[in-house]
Amino acid sequence: MTAGLNTVWVIISAAMVIFMEGGFSLLEAGFVRNKNAVNATMKIIVDLTFGALAFYVIGIHLMFGKDAFGVVGFGRATGPQGLPMEAYVLFQIGFAIAVASIISGAVAERVKFSSYIVIVVAVCGLMYPISGHWIWSADGWLAKMGMKDFAGSAAIHAMGGFAALALAMILGQRANRYDQKGGFSPSNIPLAAAGGFILWFGWFGFNAGSTLNAMDGRLADIALNTFLAAAAGGASATLFSVIRLKTADPGMAINGFLSGLVAITAGCAFVSATAAIVIGLMAGVLVLLATEWVDKLKVDDPVGAVAVHGFNGVFGTIAVGLFDLKEGLLTTGQTHLLTAQLAGAAAASVWGFVSAIAVGLLVNKLMGIRVSAEEEEQGLDPVYHGIASDESVKESQTALSAVRARASASSGSLASRG
Amino acid sequence: MTAGLNTVWVIISAAMVIFMEGGFSLLEAGFVRNKNAVNATMKIIVDLTFGALAFYVIGIHLMFGKDAFGVVGFGRATGPQGLPMEAYVLFQIGFAIAVASIISGAVAERVKFSSYIVIVVAVCGLMYPISGHWIWSADGWLAKMGMKDFAGSAAIHAMGGFAALALAMILGQRANRYDQKGGFSPSNIPLAAAGGFILWFGWFGFNAGSTLNAMDGRLADIALNTFLAAAAGGASATLFSVIRLKTADPGMAINGFLSGLVAITAGCAFVSATAAIVIGLMAGVLVLLATEWVDKLKVDDPVGAVAVHGFNGVFGTIAVGLFDLKEGLLTTGQTHLLTAQLAGAAAASVWGFVSAIAVGLLVNKLMGIRVSAEEEEQGLDPVYHGIASDESVKESQTALSAVRARASASSGSLASRG
Amino acid sequence: MTAGLNTVWVIISAAMVIFMEGGFSLLEAGFVRNKNAVNATMKIIVDLTFGALAFYVIGIHLMFGKDAFGVVGFGRATGPQGLPMEAYVLFQIGFAIAVASIISGAVAERVKFSSYIVIVVAVCGLMYPISGHWIWSADGWLAKMGMKDFAGSAAIHAMGGFAALALAMILGQRANRYDQKGGFSPSNIPLAAAGGFILWFGWFGFNAGSTLNAMDGRLADIALNTFLAAAAGGASATLFSVIRLKTADPGMAINGFLSGLVAITAGCAFVSATAAIVIGLMAGVLVLLATEWVDKLKVDDPVGAVAVHGFNGVFGTIAVGLFDLKEGLLTTGQTHLLTAQLAGAAAASVWGFVSAIAVGLLVNKLMGIRVSAEEEEQGLDPVYHGIASDESVKESQTALSAVRARASASSGSLASRG
Repeated sequence: MTAGLNTVWVIISAAMVIFMEGGFSLLEAGFVRNKNAVNATMKIIVDLTFGALAFYVIGIHLMFGKDAFGVVGFGRATGPQGLPMEAYVLFQIGFAIAVASIISGAVAERVKFSSYIVIVVAVCGLMYPISGHWIWSADGWLAKMGMKDFAGSAAIHAMGGFAALALAMILGQRANRYDQKGGFSPSNIPLAAAGGFILWFGWFGFNAGSTLNAMDGRLADIALNTFLAAAAGGASATLFSVIRLKTADPGMAINGFLSGLVAITAGCAFVSATAAIVIGLMAGVLVLLATEWVDKLKVDDPVGAVAVHGFNGVFGTIAVGLFDLKEGLLTTGQTHLLTAQLAGAAAASVWGFVSAIAVGLLVNKLMGIRVSAEEEEQGLDPVYHGIASDESVKESQTALSAVRARASASSGSLASRG
Repeated sequence: MTAGLNTVWVIISAAMVIFMEGGFSLLEAGFVRNKNAVNATMKIIVDLTFGALAFYVIGIHLMFGKDAFGVVGFGRATGPQGLPMEAYVLFQIGFAIAVASIISGAVAERVKFSSYIVIVVAVCGLMYPISGHWIWSADGWLAKMGMKDFAGSAAIHAMGGFAALALAMILGQRANRYDQKGGFSPSNIPLAAAGGFILWFGWFGFNAGSTLNAMDGRLADIALNTFLAAAAGGASATLFSVIRLKTADPGMAINGFLSGLVAITAGCAFVSATAAIVIGLMAGVLVLLATEWVDKLKVDDPVGAVAVHGFNGVFGTIAVGLFDLKEGLLTTGQTHLLTAQLAGAAAASVWGFVSAIAVGLLVNKLMGIRVSAEEEEQGLDPVYHGIASDESVKESQTALSAVRARASASSGSLASRG
Repeated sequence: MTAGLNTVWVIISAAMVIFMEGGFSLLEAGFVRNKNAVNATMKIIVDLTFGALAFYVIGIHLMFGKDAFGVVGFGRATGPQGLPMEAYVLFQIGFAIAVASIISGAVAERVKFSSYIVIVVAVCGLMYPISGHWIWSADGWLAKMGMKDFAGSAAIHAMGGFAALALAMILGQRANRYDQKGGFSPSNIPLAAAGGFILWFGWFGFNAGSTLNAMDGRLADIALNTFLAAAAGGASATLFSVIRLKTADPGMAINGFLSGLVAITAGCAFVSATAAIVIGLMAGVLVLLATEWVDKLKVDDPVGAVAVHGFNGVFGTIAVGLFDLKEGLLTTGQTHLLTAQLAGAAAASVWGFVSAIAVGLLVNKLMGIRVSAEEEEQGLDPVYHGIASDESVKESQTALSAVRARASASSGSLASRG
C-alpha cells in the first residue's frame, strides 16, 4: 500500500518535472528574437531526447553508483528503499535535463546546433552527475560534510547557472548586443509567461516530489514554502523593477518568481513559511542586481539564466545555513551548517563553471561552438530548421508584395474579427 | 497512511488550481487587443504574487479564523482534521487568487496598474474572505442556513463575477467600444483556447480537490460531473452561437465550456450525472444571453467575465436547490434548500458588487483607477511594461521600411518554410 | 483505503489525458496555415464536447456493455473491480476523444465544420467503441485470441490513424498542395511543440493510468518505458531528418517523440526498458519514411497523423509480439503472441479505414464533406468562426495603410521593446 502510494506520488511528480521542459521551451522561445524561436524549442527537444538518454545510459550510474572516494559513483545506480528503481530513475532524469535547459537559455541565438547536442550529452552524462554525486549520494563528500540541498539549489541551479555563465563567455556576445541600438527585447511575453507558469506548476513536483515518500511529514510545508517564495520573488522583483528601471518589467516579474523558486529549492523542507517569504523577497531583488552585473561584464545571457539559476542557486543554498530550523545561524546561532552550505554552493558553482569551460573549449576546438556571423544575422531557424528566412522570401518577391504577403499571413494567427 | 494520501491529493489539487492562473493569463492575453496582451499577463502575475501574499497574511484568518457573529473570522485560521494546515492554506490560496483573476478580465485594457495591485490586495485580503466566511466557515450565517456551495459557484464565481461587473462599471467603456466600428475582437483564439484548456484541467483539482479528503466516496462523481457539465456547456454554446450569431463563435465556445464548469462548481458533489449535463447545457445558453445583456447595458467586459462567472455562478448555486439528490426541488419536492441557495447566491453577488463599488470608488478617489485617454490609445504594454509602442517605432523609421521590419519580425514567430 | 488511492490515481490520470486535448489543439493550430488555426482549435473543442457526450451516452455501452459474439457490447457498461464506475467512465472518455483528435489533424483546412461534428459523433459513439470492444472487453474476439494492447497502440492509434487516412483520401488534397510552390509549412513551431509537450505530459496518465490500479507493480516500469521510447523517438527522428532532409526538421522532431509515445503504448507494461528504447528509435525512423510514403500517394495529411498514429500504432502493436518479456518472439521464441498482435493490428486498422470510408461517403452524400474552393482559399477561420479574412480587411483600406495596420497589430503580440 505504502509502496503503491509512493510510486503514484513519484510518477506524478516526475511527470510534472518533465513537463517543465515545455515551460523552458516557451520561456526561451518568448525571450529570444523571433528568428531563433524555433531553435530555442529544438534545443529543449535535444535536452528531452539526447540529454535524457545520456543520463539514463551513463550519468545516473556516475551519480548514484557505488561511491569512490566521495567523488563519483561506479557500477549500477541504486535508489531509496520503498520505491521502485524505475520511478526513481524517471524522476532523476527530469532533474538532469533541467540542468541542460538552464544552459540552453544562456547559449541561445548563437550556438551551433550540433555542438549543442554534444554539450548536452556532456552535461547530462558527465558534468551534472559528478557534482550531483557529491551532494546527493549518501557517501558524497559534501553530503558527508552535512550540506543540505533538498531539491537542488546547488546541485541543479548553481551548477547549471555557472556552467551557463562559462558557455556564454566562451560563445561571446550576440552581434551588436551592446551597441545601444536595442532590438534584443523579449519577442513574446505572454508565451514566455506561459512558460513561467508551467515551470511554477512543475516545481511542486520538483520540490515536494523530492521527498520520494508520500508519508514524509514535511510534504505540505515544502509545497507551501515553494509557493510563498515564488510569490514573494515575483512581488519584490516587480516592485524593484519599478523603482530601478521605472517600468513594471515583465521579464523581471517572470524571472523574479522563478528566482524565488530557485532560491527556496534547497531549503523548502528545512525553513519556516516566514523564512520562505524572506528568501523569496531577497531573490526577487537579487535577480535584478545580478542581471545588471552580468550585463556590466558584457556577458550575453539572452534569458537571464545566470542571474536566475546561478546567483539564486548560490543564494538559496546559503540561505539554508541562515534559516534552517534546526541548525541555521539566524535561527539557532550555529555556524557549522552555514559553513557546509558555503562549501557546497562554492563547489557546485566552481565545478559547473570549470567543467563547462573545459567542455566548451574542447567542443570549440573539435567542431566549433559558434555559428558564423552570416548565420547569426540570418537566424538559426532558417539555418538549421528549414524555416524560410526573411531574405529568401524577399528575393522571390517584390518588396511591397512580400510585405503584404507576410502581413496577411500573420494576421490570421493574430486572428481579429472586424 | 490516510494523512499521507490526503496530503498528496490536496497538494496535487492545489498545484492544478494554481496552474489555472496560467490559463487565466493566456485566456485574457488572447481575448484582449495585442497592445494590452502583456499587461493582461502582468495582472495575472499580480494575482499570483501580491494577491496570494495578501490572502496568506490577512485574508485566510478573516475567512477561517474563530467566528464572530457568523460574519467574519478573527484570530488564527484553522482547517479540517486529517490534513496538514499548510496543505489547506496552499489550496485556499489558489481559490482566493482565482477571484482576482476573474476580475482581471473585466477591467482589462484600461485599469491603472498600480490601482490594480491595490484592488487585488483588497479582493484577496478582505472582500473575498468575508463572504467566503459566510459560506465556508462552519459558523458562517449562510452555512448555518444550510446553503450548499461545494467548490464555490457562489463563494468564488458569483462573488468575483459581480465584483467584476462593479469595477467594469466604475471604469467605464474602452474608447470607441460601442461605436460600431469594431476592432475589439479576440486577438489570438488558439492561445485563448489553450488558456481555456488549462482552466478545464485545473478545474478537476478545484472541484474534486475540494473534498480535501481522498477517501471521500463522492470523488469520482465530482470529477465526472465536472467534465460532463463542461462538455455540455461547450456544445450548447457552440450550437446556440450558430443559431443566434450565425457563426460557430470561438469566444462563445470557450466561454461556454467555462460556464459549464462554473455552473457545476456548487453542485458537483450533490447532483446526478444527468443533472450535470442539463446544468451544463443551460449554462452554455445562458452565457450568450448574459453577454448580450451586459453589452446592451454598455458595460464593457473585454473577456465576458460577468457572463461566465457572475451569471453562471448564480445559476449554478440556484441549480443545487433544484437538482440536489437529497433536498432539491425537482428531485425531492423540498423547497428549503432552494431558499438557502437563493439567499446564498444573492448574498455573494450583492456583497461582491457592493464591496467592489466601495473599493473601486475609494481607489479612484485616492489614486485614480483609469489610465488617460492617450495611454489607452497607446496601449498598456508600452505605458507600463516597457514594450515598444507602434508609434515610437514608426517615428524612428520611414514608413515602408518600418512596415518591412515589423512584417519580417513577425514572420519568424509565425515561422513558415517556403 | 485502496479504493481511495485508486480513485485519486485514475482521476488525476484522467485529467492528464483530457488535458491532452489542449496539446492536440496547439499542435494542429501550429502545424496548419494561419487562416485555419482557429478552426483547428474549434475542431478540438468539438471533440471535447460533442465527441465526449456521444461516447458517454452511446459509445461506452457498445464498448463495455454485455458482450454479444465478441463483436459488440449491449446494455449498461461495466468497469473493473475496486474502482468507482464514474472514474472509469471519465478515463475512457479521455481515450475516446483522443481518437477524434487524431482524425482532426488529417482532415484539417478543408473539412466542413458541420460534417466534422457528425464524423466525431460517429467516431466516438460508434466506430471506436466497436473495435475497442474487440480488444479491451474481456470477451472481445481479439482479447480472447490473447492480443495485448495495454493502452491502445491498436485500439486508439492504429484505428484512429487509418480512419484519418480514409477521411483524408475522401476529402482529397488541399488546393495546390502538390504543385511544388510550397506555403504549407507549419505556421508556428513553438506553439506546436508546446502542444507536443502537453501530449507527452498527458501520456503518463494515458499509459500509467491504464493500470486503473495504483497497486499495480508495473506502474513505474510503464512510466519509465513511456518516457524512454519518446526520448528515443525524438532523437532518432531528429538525426534521421538531418541525414535524409538535410535539416534538423522541427516537425519531424515533434512527430518523432510522439511516434515513440504511440509505439510504446501497446507494450509499455510488457517490455524491458531497453526494448522501449529500441521501439522508440525505430518509431522515429518510421515516422519519416511513412510521411514520405503518404506524400508519395498524394494523400494530404496536414499534421502527419497517419504516419504518427496509424503506422506507429501498427508498429507498436506488432512490437509487443517481438519484445514481450513473457511471450515475445525475440525474447522467448514463441510465435503465438506475434500472430495475435498481427491480427489485432490488422483488424483495428482495417476497421478504422473501412468504417471511416463508410461514414465519410455517407456524410459526403448527405451534407457534403468538403468546403468549396472559395471557402478553402479564404480560410476556414473567416468562413466558420467570424474571424476577419485578409480580403475583407484589404477592401476597406488602401494597400499600404492596410499593411501598416496589420504590421502594427502584429507587433504588439510579438512585443518587442526598442
